[in-house]
Amino acid sequence: MKEVTVLSPATVANVVCGFDILGFALNDPIDELTVSLSDTPGVTIINKDDYHLPTKAEDNVSGAALLAMLDELKEITGFELVSNKNIKPGSGIGSSAASAAGAVIAANHLLGNRFSREDLVRFAMFGEKVASGVKHADNIAPAIYGGVTLIRSIFPLDIVSLDAPELHVTVVHPQIEVRTSDARQILKQRVLLKDAIKQWGNIAGLVAGLLKHDYDLIGRSLEDVIIEPVRSILIPGFDEVKLKCREAGALGGGISGSGPSIFMLSRNGESAVQVESVMKEVYNKIGLAYHTHVTTINMEGVKLKASY
Amino acid sequence: MKEVTVLSPATVANVVCGFDILGFALNDPIDELTVSLSDTPGVTIINKDDYHLPTKAEDNVSGAALLAMLDELKEITGFELVSNKNIKPGSGIGSSAASAAGAVIAANHLLGNRFSREDLVRFAMFGEKVASGVKHADNIAPAIYGGVTLIRSIFPLDIVSLDAPELHVTVVHPQIEVRTSDARQILKQRVLLKDAIKQWGNIAGLVAGLLKHDYDLIGRSLEDVIIEPVRSILIPGFDEVKLKCREAGALGGGISGSGPSIFMLSRNGESAVQVESVMKEVYNKIGLAYHTHVTTINMEGVKLKASY
Repeated sequence: MKEVTVLSPATVANVVCGFDILGFALNDPIDELTVSLSDTPGVTIINKDDYHLPTKAEDNVSGAALLAMLDELKEITGFELVSNKNIKPGSGIGSSAASAAGAVIAANHLLGNRFSREDLVRFAMFGEKVASGVKHADNIAPAIYGGVTLIRSIFPLDIVSLDAPELHVTVVHPQIEVRTSDARQILKQRVLLKDAIKQWGNIAGLVAGLLKHDYDLIGRSLEDVIIEPVRSILIPGFDEVKLKCREAGALGGGISGSGPSIFMLSRNGESAVQVESVMKEVYNKIGLAYHTHVTTINMEGVKLKASY
Repeated sequence: MKEVTVLSPATVANVVCGFDILGFALNDPIDELTVSLSDTPGVTIINKDDYHLPTKAEDNVSGAALLAMLDELKEITGFELVSNKNIKPGSGIGSSAASAAGAVIAANHLLGNRFSREDLVRFAMFGEKVASGVKHADNIAPAIYGGVTLIRSIFPLDIVSLDAPELHVTVVHPQIEVRTSDARQILKQRVLLKDAIKQWGNIAGLVAGLLKHDYDLIGRSLEDVIIEPVRSILIPGFDEVKLKCREAGALGGGISGSGPSIFMLSRNGESAVQVESVMKEVYNKIGLAYHTHVTTINMEGVKLKASY
């Protein structure tokens, strides 16, 4: 039986002032997924990791994404998916997006790449709906396209790749649970126009900084006056991490996705390592367990591991 | 007596989705201002045009800007300003910014360019305060820097020049009065978060489109879900002008500043002329007097006409 194995990256969505519209892919951690054609109708899920994710296709992120693809395929009976995750669900670095994006890209390879990348984003968003109740693309798009992606609009889908300079990323995942749905519920439905203006000044500055490869402008623009003040309350140590990481040389950073992970961007690898030690110091002091990742932006997105 | 004459351009602020943060300069219309040193304390104003603008320095846009500069100059007694305006006050294409920016740049030349461009923006904003009650920089910055400018932040001032592709601009000024203060008052103080997200998706797309020289992306991003729906009600014919100009080939456009002028961007000169004829058609049908300008983006900003 023919099968395709892919490596599917973690992603950082929102990116401080880019709530719901910006994301980037990471080189670490990475999930591994294998998809093959199956005579069993629907999607058969086999989990090889210890996360106890649902195996019923409709309730599984990869499963829901593959079912959406199957809906548009007349001649295919079913898929079998073997999932081996390294990205912890609920960490805020796009675990569900990696599952959904990896599954649809692997399946598309099996089918001779008949679907466009935009089609794949569309299918994968069904997985996001299972995970968080909302079809959002700010993790899916960078997982599929690689690099830094702007989602200008979801309906109609309009994804723009932004050619960023070399950036090093440090992530800390404090071991507490923040449910995406909770993190969404605490947001106010209305915001002050003057805050919205500040926010769009910053997102405009961040996009300009990325495209002009202007590190100082990137740093100055990494400011969020709308979402972070509300959501950061759910993350112990957030303010201290942010302040001390900036003092240690980070350009800036904030909540990854809806948290609890915090990410920081740096110009170079030494700074990213320095930032990691600051993060460790803060959470050691608080006495909260954590994981860290020191990595770079993943330019390729989901990639083939092996194809037989 | 030493004197400096400058040409100071009209500007388009807000630029659809860039409310309060984006602006660009035009090659037409252009004001002419001459500044000289004077032994009379303060600022002496001589108006050579028919706009009957105030001659008391505190109440005059150029005067207030020059007074702010004088405040930081110990050895200078006064300035004399001769103003010859072509940009009609109240048209929405930065008439007051041209007066303020032109005056401070001319004075700075007289003084051997001792002030930075950021200082000049700071002085000129005192003129904007006289004109509209608010210190805003989205006309001042492009008038002084030229091209397309992003004002990421006003306090502290953070101006970013955006290297845009060749763009042709058509402006129509229907001869009605919209006071900037009225146009500001009708805005709601709070906006829906979901609308704010759309808006920052569009401003991010517009900045990316400008820097990537991607005309289609610029066109798709020229959408304003927050300010335009409220303010366009004050401008007769707005919806029809916008729709028909797009049909005629314009990339897009909207209210210039707080109106009543409407601007449209085009890829080339032929399209800009076509757009002008559509604008004329609409206002001829409505029976409202108007002026039009077909021009391009001014890359230099205020420039020296002659120096003696």
